[in-house]
Amino acid sequence: MTPIRLYDLAASGRRFSPYCWRARLSLARKGLPYETVPVAFTEIPTILDGQQKTVPVIDDGGRIVRDSWAIAEHLEATYPDRPALFGGEAGRAACRFAESWANSILPLIGPIVLMDIHALLAPADQAHFRRTRETRFGRPLEEVVAGREARVAPLREALTPLRLTLRAQPFVGGTEPNYGDFAVWGSLRWPLTVATIEILAADDPVLVWYRAVAEAVGLAGEA
Amino acid sequence: MTPIRLYDLAASGRRFSPYCWRARLSLARKGLPYETVPVAFTEIPTILDGQQKTVPVIDDGGRIVRDSWAIAEHLEATYPDRPALFGGEAGRAACRFAESWANSILPLIGPIVLMDIHALLAPADQAHFRRTRETRFGRPLEEVVAGREARVAPLREALTPLRLTLRAQPFVGGTEPNYGDFAVWGSLRWPLTVATIEILAADDPVLVWYRAVAEAVGLAGEA
Repeated sequence: MTPIRLYDLAASGRRFSPYCWRARLSLARKGLPYETVPVAFTEIPTILDGQQKTVPVIDDGGRIVRDSWAIAEHLEATYPDRPALFGGEAGRAACRFAESWANSILPLIGPIVLMDIHALLAPADQAHFRRTRETRFGRPLEEVVAGREARVAPLREALTPLRLTLRAQPFVGGTEPNYGDFAVWGSLRWPLTVATIEILAADDPVLVWYRAVAEAVGLAGEA
Repeated sequence: MTPIRLYDLAASGRRFSPYCWRARLSLARKGLPYETVPVAFTEIPTILDGQQKTVPVIDDGGRIVRDSWAIAEHLEATYPDRPALFGGEAGRAACRFAESWANSILPLIGPIVLMDIHALLAPADQAHFRRTRETRFGRPLEEVVAGREARVAPLREALTPLRLTLRAQPFVGGTEPNYGDFAVWGSLRWPLTVATIEILAADDPVLVWYRAVAEAVGLAGEA
């Protein structure tokens, strides 16, 4: 089988996109041969057909699929005999909810790590990143991250639903991780990859889960 | 079949416990005959065997089950041929996550509605409620609710994961509501039953879902 190609956001050798990680964990969970192609922000328009605006995008034997949710759906439909990403229709719906929750914590993380990401980027990417993010936030990046130390506690607090869940079961998906776990993992991988301040306390049970998810999909060296 | 008895927190004719509503919607979803027994806070130690400390409690033909999650598990195991509350093992795990999220918004709601609940209680219950809640919050109820208008916006914001989910599907459970929906519904039913200020904007898609859940389980008159 030709390896699936995953176009994966990268800078200074680090892969930090929460969405790309969701796709990568989905590929790993399915046990499919894949290779990742590092892509800088400003390189995205040059990959594949030149029509891509975001990553992750996968090339699965000529079939191009973009967006982490769509990639998971594609993998689940195309490789149903491999370990499940959703676990049936109810599981699929539940993964959507977990993904929505995982997305809702991203705005708590951005204002902590924006300048840390900026520092990793090549000059052309820095200009692109600053322009797009300053448009989104309406002020200079330096102002967005000012006082960021005070934003760590609210982020940790926002993870309460995950901690409550982990008291009852080892994974969001139950006894095995599923796409719900991967969605949350991706959101946390983002700051854990780039942040220059401590994101999670060393005794946070979230970290135990974080390592267990990586181990379950065979990416233990990545956690 | 003898109706299942649901012991249900009540005051001034209103049923406002988020946990009791989770049990009630689970009973309704299963289509089981049931009756509710209104219980005031200070009456809880007098029901059944006198050993109960919280409601909901159900009496299912002599089998006593307390705690809304345990009640849902009991109903799912005992009446598997009725509509599913969880939808298999992955669905069950996902419902636990949805319930954890639903619980995490309760602390945003309490400081809005505490005095509204107090106003509905009989004198003996008022004393009990004030004593237990002031111990929990460490200050007078009146101080806890001071400036509560400013707490409505953060509560609405906290519902973002639900709104994102509802863009993709009609229910947390997918095309049909499940216990994940009931858990969230119960959390919202609480302020929507007692609050004397507007909790959700009239055009919030959460309200469309809220009515649809009630309708799906045959409790449309309750939404």
